[in-house]
Amino acid sequence: TDNIVLIARALKNQFIIPEWRPFMDHIREIYDDCKQINDGKPAAYIPQLARVDPNYWGVSVCTIDGQRFSLGDTTIPFSLQSIVKPLAYALVLNDLTPEVVHNYVGQEPSGKSFNELTLDYQHKPHNPMINAGAIVVSSLLKKELNIADRFDYTMEQMKRLTGGEHLAFNNSVYLSERATADRNFALGYYMRENKCFPEGVDLHEVLEFYFQLCSIEVTAESGSVIAATLANGGICPMTGEKVLSADAVRNTLSLMHSCGMYDYSGQFAFKVGLPAKSGVAGGVMLVVPNVMGIFLWSPPLDKWGNSCKGVQFCQHLVAKFNFHNYDNLKHTQKKIDP
Amino acid sequence: TDNIVLIARALKNQFIIPEWRPFMDHIREIYDDCKQINDGKPAAYIPQLARVDPNYWGVSVCTIDGQRFSLGDTTIPFSLQSIVKPLAYALVLNDLTPEVVHNYVGQEPSGKSFNELTLDYQHKPHNPMINAGAIVVSSLLKKELNIADRFDYTMEQMKRLTGGEHLAFNNSVYLSERATADRNFALGYYMRENKCFPEGVDLHEVLEFYFQLCSIEVTAESGSVIAATLANGGICPMTGEKVLSADAVRNTLSLMHSCGMYDYSGQFAFKVGLPAKSGVAGGVMLVVPNVMGIFLWSPPLDKWGNSCKGVQFCQHLVAKFNFHNYDNLKHTQKKIDP
Amino acid sequence: TDNIVLIARALKNQFIIPEWRPFMDHIREIYDDCKQINDGKPAAYIPQLARVDPNYWGVSVCTIDGQRFSLGDTTIPFSLQSIVKPLAYALVLNDLTPEVVHNYVGQEPSGKSFNELTLDYQHKPHNPMINAGAIVVSSLLKKELNIADRFDYTMEQMKRLTGGEHLAFNNSVYLSERATADRNFALGYYMRENKCFPEGVDLHEVLEFYFQLCSIEVTAESGSVIAATLANGGICPMTGEKVLSADAVRNTLSLMHSCGMYDYSGQFAFKVGLPAKSGVAGGVMLVVPNVMGIFLWSPPLDKWGNSCKGVQFCQHLVAKFNFHNYDNLKHTQKKIDP
Amino acid sequence: TDNIVLIARALKNQFIIPEWRPFMDHIREIYDDCKQINDGKPAAYIPQLARVDPNYWGVSVCTIDGQRFSLGDTTIPFSLQSIVKPLAYALVLNDLTPEVVHNYVGQEPSGKSFNELTLDYQHKPHNPMINAGAIVVSSLLKKELNIADRFDYTMEQMKRLTGGEHLAFNNSVYLSERATADRNFALGYYMRENKCFPEGVDLHEVLEFYFQLCSIEVTAESGSVIAATLANGGICPMTGEKVLSADAVRNTLSLMHSCGMYDYSGQFAFKVGLPAKSGVAGGVMLVVPNVMGIFLWSPPLDKWGNSCKGVQFCQHLVAKFNFHNYDNLKHTQKKIDP
Repeated sequence: TDNIVLIARALKNQFIIPEWRPFMDHIREIYDDCKQINDGKPAAYIPQLARVDPNYWGVSVCTIDGQRFSLGDTTIPFSLQSIVKPLAYALVLNDLTPEVVHNYVGQEPSGKSFNELTLDYQHKPHNPMINAGAIVVSSLLKKELNIADRFDYTMEQMKRLTGGEHLAFNNSVYLSERATADRNFALGYYMRENKCFPEGVDLHEVLEFYFQLCSIEVTAESGSVIAATLANGGICPMTGEKVLSADAVRNTLSLMHSCGMYDYSGQFAFKVGLPAKSGVAGGVMLVVPNVMGIFLWSPPLDKWGNSCKGVQFCQHLVAKFNFHNYDNLKHTQKKIDP
Repeated sequence: TDNIVLIARALKNQFIIPEWRPFMDHIREIYDDCKQINDGKPAAYIPQLARVDPNYWGVSVCTIDGQRFSLGDTTIPFSLQSIVKPLAYALVLNDLTPEVVHNYVGQEPSGKSFNELTLDYQHKPHNPMINAGAIVVSSLLKKELNIADRFDYTMEQMKRLTGGEHLAFNNSVYLSERATADRNFALGYYMRENKCFPEGVDLHEVLEFYFQLCSIEVTAESGSVIAATLANGGICPMTGEKVLSADAVRNTLSLMHSCGMYDYSGQFAFKVGLPAKSGVAGGVMLVVPNVMGIFLWSPPLDKWGNSCKGVQFCQHLVAKFNFHNYDNLKHTQKKIDP
Repeated sequence: TDNIVLIARALKNQFIIPEWRPFMDHIREIYDDCKQINDGKPAAYIPQLARVDPNYWGVSVCTIDGQRFSLGDTTIPFSLQSIVKPLAYALVLNDLTPEVVHNYVGQEPSGKSFNELTLDYQHKPHNPMINAGAIVVSSLLKKELNIADRFDYTMEQMKRLTGGEHLAFNNSVYLSERATADRNFALGYYMRENKCFPEGVDLHEVLEFYFQLCSIEVTAESGSVIAATLANGGICPMTGEKVLSADAVRNTLSLMHSCGMYDYSGQFAFKVGLPAKSGVAGGVMLVVPNVMGIFLWSPPLDKWGNSCKGVQFCQHLVAKFNFHNYDNLKHTQKKIDP
Repeated sequence: TDNIVLIARALKNQFIIPEWRPFMDHIREIYDDCKQINDGKPAAYIPQLARVDPNYWGVSVCTIDGQRFSLGDTTIPFSLQSIVKPLAYALVLNDLTPEVVHNYVGQEPSGKSFNELTLDYQHKPHNPMINAGAIVVSSLLKKELNIADRFDYTMEQMKRLTGGEHLAFNNSVYLSERATADRNFALGYYMRENKCFPEGVDLHEVLEFYFQLCSIEVTAESGSVIAATLANGGICPMTGEKVLSADAVRNTLSLMHSCGMYDYSGQFAFKVGLPAKSGVAGGVMLVVPNVMGIFLWSPPLDKWGNSCKGVQFCQHLVAKFNFHNYDNLKHTQKKIDP
């Protein structure tokens, strides 16, 4: 497909990264540095994740005007897992006001593990980026439709977020997830006891829907378009199509910023200062608002469940470029502004 | 003192808020709206806070080029209380690297109350914005000096942050704080047991130093200059003097963003999306990076310990202006860009 | 049925309570005193419990030599609920050694609520008297049989514990319990995640079996025979039949002593000092080892979930008689030794 | 001093253990068996405990009629440490009613570590056997006297409990305890914040008093007389003197039964079923009500802080003799009744 945004910009010579080649050189350098990292182990709780090659390492960049750049294993599909959480949340915010949505889920970092059996002081899940919150958010996603239509709707919207690039459903991942989901069932029943769900919800159906969402696959390339769509306020840079409202994106980025990297979120916000979300399949979706989306993929995880190479890449990136949320402060001119 | 920054800018007609009068009108409107709020009660744990007039309500604005605007009770002194926490942290970061400082204190929201008797998984206080973390930060502040010189040094630096405007020490607040500080003593001993302090620290001296820092007084006016100095990357907009390194300010703003408003921090980051810090005397220090500092003062507090009027003001402000951290997203053009 | 034990004793004039009439007078006095109590409310989480008459108040005594005495509503059936926990545990101990059983469940008071979503430091339920522990114990009860046979076996053994007196299954209670069992399902999944169950267990089947056990009905009269069987070291005083091994009874009484009265267990052990178990239908099964069993029934519950009248009766009883575990200390001769 | 109780009994040939010699043989056998145990390490948090010979192993028995028997290192003094907790509690109960005392401290096992920074749902320490509770109990002990007289009084009463046998104060242990007491200071301040103390209490004085109580020394021999005094309902078997009221003893034994062995208390109550209290110097005070007191001493501790040899001895003892609380059940006749 032709990228109409890119062409329009190119004609006007107004790219957000005016010097593309030196920028690519910097990214390649960071990519190579991170390739050396041998820390961590892939998730092993389902065979579909355990048996993946731990050496896969891919980085894809997509700017808000549609410039692209990929290094390494960026065309191999892997499941989104928790990275679907901010996307489901954004889709829900596209339909419902934040007030309605946040009747069911909070906005606070929990200070607890992502799958902790705990609710906040109002008996709500702490935020949409932990399992409990994401399950509730799933229950709100087009809840007036039947379950098949809800899944179709979600896939369709996700496809628009990728600008039509790779998106698939991995049924064997789904079946394995469902078979090893004791904690999520425990969370689900605990939340039903606490009246966390909207009326009329079928608990097992919601949980299965949630596991299905987690089993959606992207490649680093198609994922970078999703990230760029978020960076671009909800308009896909490859198609120019408005997929999400700017408000939905604003709120999604806020919560990715504070809660996106599991128990490492506070340190990540401090050191990197950008909205990001990781998943146990080794993906990291990083958003540089108004500039670009970056998707990183490397299966070995650190003790918090984040991709080791992915986190290092983000830290190197911010050490080199003026991307940290508070880097744009006056009188801070040591780093590169690409 | 002449404001040399202001004059330079005025000569060049390059103010950050080009249309000053309409901006003031908006601020006055929000000020008036918030004046109606009758919620909350002033802190009552020491008589010096309990007996203050709950009707005081002051708002002071100071832009990064030194434009000023004040409404209401902005020349009456009150104690900084917890608002001193980010300032002490910034002063420590001015001397020591973040790596050294964060050997002693984390960067994660705790998910717990500000004075909870708890440490993180590494037996460190969760962050510098809760009591445990601020006590440890105080122990690092010019720790090579004797205690009198450490206090002098701090007052001197704080005076530079206010550009020489009102700053004082309230000894009766200090004496009351110290006399009702059972929880902080419990925290101090618990942290000493967990080896949270640098070597050679005298626990009672550190606690007294911390209570003294909390008892430093500003006015909303002088406080707004501090906020503006942070907004300006560490250079005081009234004097042009560099007080803090831009790195120290970046890290301070990061943690104010995620942890500055007690247990309401996550909601505040979500709804307001700006670095802020509140204190139990009713002050709220709000930073709009690269634009302005705002200092709000109204003693009645909500259940989280934040000034009711102060929090409302922040939410109204962001509803009107493009100040939220993720408001600057492309394709979000409904609000005013002052 | 003739009570062969009673007849044998009577012939020898060797009753454990030699002065039966004065003892009955004392019991009647306590019964009347407790009748005045108007505290508490019946459990309301299922309609079958909510709609019971709160004025029911029955007390039945059965000594280890089979003397009987009943006051009030002692022939009306009600569900055992948690009172089945020590009975299921005793039946399991009849088949398996304590070492095997306590591989799956601990012996410590939890310091937590009976249905808390928590496990001990070894990832086992704290003890068999809280829900988590009782569910695991249910999974061990004749686990080699199919589920219908397991239920038959349990009913048969329970019938032997009552010496053939009233025992029934209340299917509507069971259906309601199962329909409102979110917390128990949450517990079940959480435990399965933590590998708390023996191999090959079907979680939903175990939970249903557990709800069925809770739905077994007794009367205060038949319940007092169960209590007396425990007091008598496992031999039913009405039939002379050995139902439980003395070791199984010893261990059961130990845990009833420390954990039988929900979060009030420590206070009950301190004030009453006798093994007891309460249920949310308002029953309290009290054991005076080597002397008698007492079954109390009054539906209104205190904040811990124990029958208000039942607990008061126990405290009055021990204030009058030498029944407290440490009342038999030398040099304590103020109370009556019946 | 002549043992007038012993002589009186001997004349009447009415000893509680009629066959003394075989009983001694059994005890010697258990002593020898436990001597082989090499598990555990002595407490090391103060040098006075760390440098003790880990091979010390002493057992002293004193029956309620004053028969004595000692094996191994039973004349070497060591500090009571936590074993003073039930004694201080008993002394307080001698003066004040349980209602008054339990206004300040609960009766529930905490389910938490002995020095946990936590209070129960009424903001009271959970029970007198954990540090928080023992500190509050110390604050009640003859609180109308000045601190020197309170210490004198306590020593005097303790001397009566030992029947005049070895009792001393180890000042170097006290000084070390006080110097390493960060957690206890944290507990003290936390409790003062929660208004746990009676009015007029000087916190530092109470803490020092508590550390002094912990630093009182006994030998296994003199300790066994204390244990026997408790077994005998408060009357010292060596002097016939009434030191504690039977009620005070009853309540003390109740709480030793449920909370005396730190986090192992529930398991100990289950397996041994006798009131006991351990201390970090390696002592275990075991009470067989109406029969005897036993004092065990061996410094190496298990992970719960109980003497390894001490706990094993108790378990062997109960495996051999009918001493478990529920061993006296009818129809349990396999064990020896000495």
